[in-house]
Amino acid sequence: MALIVQKFGGTSVADAERIRNVARIITDTYAKGNDVVAVLSAQGDTTDDLIDRAAELNPNASKRELDMLLSTGEQISCSLCAMAIEAMGFPVVSLTGWQAGFYTNSGYGNARIKRVRGERIRAELDKRRIVIVTGFQGINKYDDITTLGRGGSDTSAVAIAASLNAGLCQIFTDVDGVYTADPRLVPTAHKLEEITYDEMLELATLGAQVLHNRSVEMAKRYNVNLEVLSSFSGKPGTKVKEVVKTMEKSHVSGVAKDKNIARLALVGLEDTPGIAFQVFSLLAKNNVNVDIILQSIGRSDTKDISFTVAKGDMELARNLLEESRDRIHFDRIDVSDNIAKVSIVGAGMINNPGVAAEMFEALFDAGINISMISTSEIKVSVLVHISDADQAVRVIHDKFYDEFNGRQ
Amino acid sequence: MALIVQKFGGTSVADAERIRNVARIITDTYAKGNDVVAVLSAQGDTTDDLIDRAAELNPNASKRELDMLLSTGEQISCSLCAMAIEAMGFPVVSLTGWQAGFYTNSGYGNARIKRVRGERIRAELDKRRIVIVTGFQGINKYDDITTLGRGGSDTSAVAIAASLNAGLCQIFTDVDGVYTADPRLVPTAHKLEEITYDEMLELATLGAQVLHNRSVEMAKRYNVNLEVLSSFSGKPGTKVKEVVKTMEKSHVSGVAKDKNIARLALVGLEDTPGIAFQVFSLLAKNNVNVDIILQSIGRSDTKDISFTVAKGDMELARNLLEESRDRIHFDRIDVSDNIAKVSIVGAGMINNPGVAAEMFEALFDAGINISMISTSEIKVSVLVHISDADQAVRVIHDKFYDEFNGRQ
Repeated sequence: MALIVQKFGGTSVADAERIRNVARIITDTYAKGNDVVAVLSAQGDTTDDLIDRAAELNPNASKRELDMLLSTGEQISCSLCAMAIEAMGFPVVSLTGWQAGFYTNSGYGNARIKRVRGERIRAELDKRRIVIVTGFQGINKYDDITTLGRGGSDTSAVAIAASLNAGLCQIFTDVDGVYTADPRLVPTAHKLEEITYDEMLELATLGAQVLHNRSVEMAKRYNVNLEVLSSFSGKPGTKVKEVVKTMEKSHVSGVAKDKNIARLALVGLEDTPGIAFQVFSLLAKNNVNVDIILQSIGRSDTKDISFTVAKGDMELARNLLEESRDRIHFDRIDVSDNIAKVSIVGAGMINNPGVAAEMFEALFDAGINISMISTSEIKVSVLVHISDADQAVRVIHDKFYDEFNGRQ
Repeated sequence: MALIVQKFGGTSVADAERIRNVARIITDTYAKGNDVVAVLSAQGDTTDDLIDRAAELNPNASKRELDMLLSTGEQISCSLCAMAIEAMGFPVVSLTGWQAGFYTNSGYGNARIKRVRGERIRAELDKRRIVIVTGFQGINKYDDITTLGRGGSDTSAVAIAASLNAGLCQIFTDVDGVYTADPRLVPTAHKLEEITYDEMLELATLGAQVLHNRSVEMAKRYNVNLEVLSSFSGKPGTKVKEVVKTMEKSHVSGVAKDKNIARLALVGLEDTPGIAFQVFSLLAKNNVNVDIILQSIGRSDTKDISFTVAKGDMELARNLLEESRDRIHFDRIDVSDNIAKVSIVGAGMINNPGVAAEMFEALFDAGINISMISTSEIKVSVLVHISDADQAVRVIHDKFYDEFNGRQ
């Protein structure tokens, strides 16, 4: 008898019929002799609706009160799902974040889980009850309700799996698993049977939007076996684990794109020691996350530094740098948000130096200009014009899956 | 500087505009230098909507899960109201039942408050914050969420006022206060300035539907000064207290009617000692509340017992008695739900023996037949045919306010 944690996202519990479907998946797993803890998101658009209602009363509402409001969404979906399971004749109990022992820091709206005190969940499992737990939420040391931010329910599920030593954590979503590229964009994209934590992390960060990257980081740290699968199809999904069977591995696991980025370039930056530290500590202090950084030599005594940030941070980053011109001397800032990042990810890449060159060749053949390049051990990212992004994904995918590897 | 508890019902917080109105009432009270704790119900039809959604998944959902579901309604209204108050620039915090320290027994769906641990509320008031508390809910010793049943928010407000020794507990509703009769039914009905707890209790029990009777009982026990007033009109309401100024008192404070009753008559009941005890303990054990009881002598060795119950309990009471015919012997049970109870209430009645006779005269003059009579120190109730109920209220009100006392 194994303990299985199952997480269901908002689409999977959007209405009564879908809640019944989720209840069936849960009770089928339980009926096979497993202990089951299910973690649920709020139904469909509930969270967005609540945010709209808050904005009507106060566009600058405190995050403390917003969390108080938003946490009701999962409480509703969880109690409704418990009722559906009751109707099928199974023993069940639903628990809120605080009842389930989710303790977080006080970062309202984007809190971090500090620990999961699993006593209550364990006690309910010992009574052979199915346990339904609200995702996305916890309480801080003041007994105030916190939420984990977008995608936080994945993290809730992994945290429970880690704290209770679950054999498997299944993330049910509206896609079949992790694909080599977005299937809506690349018809020949196919589902991966397995993928490593590191590859999944790069894909999550790169905008593949299948799993929340915090949840993957946590799964890697606590070695929680994940499976991403569809709550609708009933098919096996993609397993995410530390090491995968190399026989099946291509050099490249997936191609991802991210259109939500902007590039800033500091041109004619004074070439003094510590200047890069000054630029990026200023941004870090103001919570601007910087992704790709490129430094190049400019005229004689100056250099240029380019970097990318999330699109929503572009103006903030520009203003911060403009305001500190008395300390950080440069000629000008160029900014652009007409760009996208396209990346290939694969654990096998490190032993295959030709992979990056193949990617660039595919883009060259398609006439797509590359404006920045960044590489790590398991990925290669390029910046291209935003209008080229979709085609870039397609030609790169074709290169690796149709020509290079001869795979479908 | 006084501590004032203000309770707002579902109609008062039904939409964004009304929440802003409630926020203004609260902040006006705070701006005058008072400490304010506001207790809110769920918005408008939220509770009924949630019940409908539950019924769609499970018509027999456990009360434990229903309470988990329903308690979200107040959490939403309270956090939204807190945001509206933030937008007006006042310091505020919203608290759920468990955060505010509401401990109840485990009677899911109709829990009783055992104690209110006021530490958190007090700590917030000490920081000069307005405190918004969810009505209607608490937690039991298992840390599970409970609700207090319909009208429970009134009780929540009085419990906070009692536990924090508040100077005043204002119950804001959609009527101006307590009237001598339902103003929609009796155009000459007028608002009472003051009323005693006992009179209010009789009126609440009798179906006046202004205040939940549990809240009035609690207010009487802890001597909490209540005021019933409108959240829309801004006018003074009706004060409910232990003793009221007798100068202003009529013999009769109000006329009420209750159509939600049914009468059962056990005809030809065996006249053995303890037979009444057997009948009513059977009903009590099955949670059937009995209101008026009348016993009369029947044929030689038998008697008849008539009593009233809530309409929804009529069939249950009949079945319980039919099933126990081997122990409780009688000829037949007559039942009727075509009846209504009309009552007059007044603390001055006890010293004015003519009051009941005046009431009967008013009904006689109008040709309304009385089928049962019941009296207490401060009330007289009669059963009439349901089609006569509204007219009965009008003619009785006219009798006491237009003729007998010469008051308007």
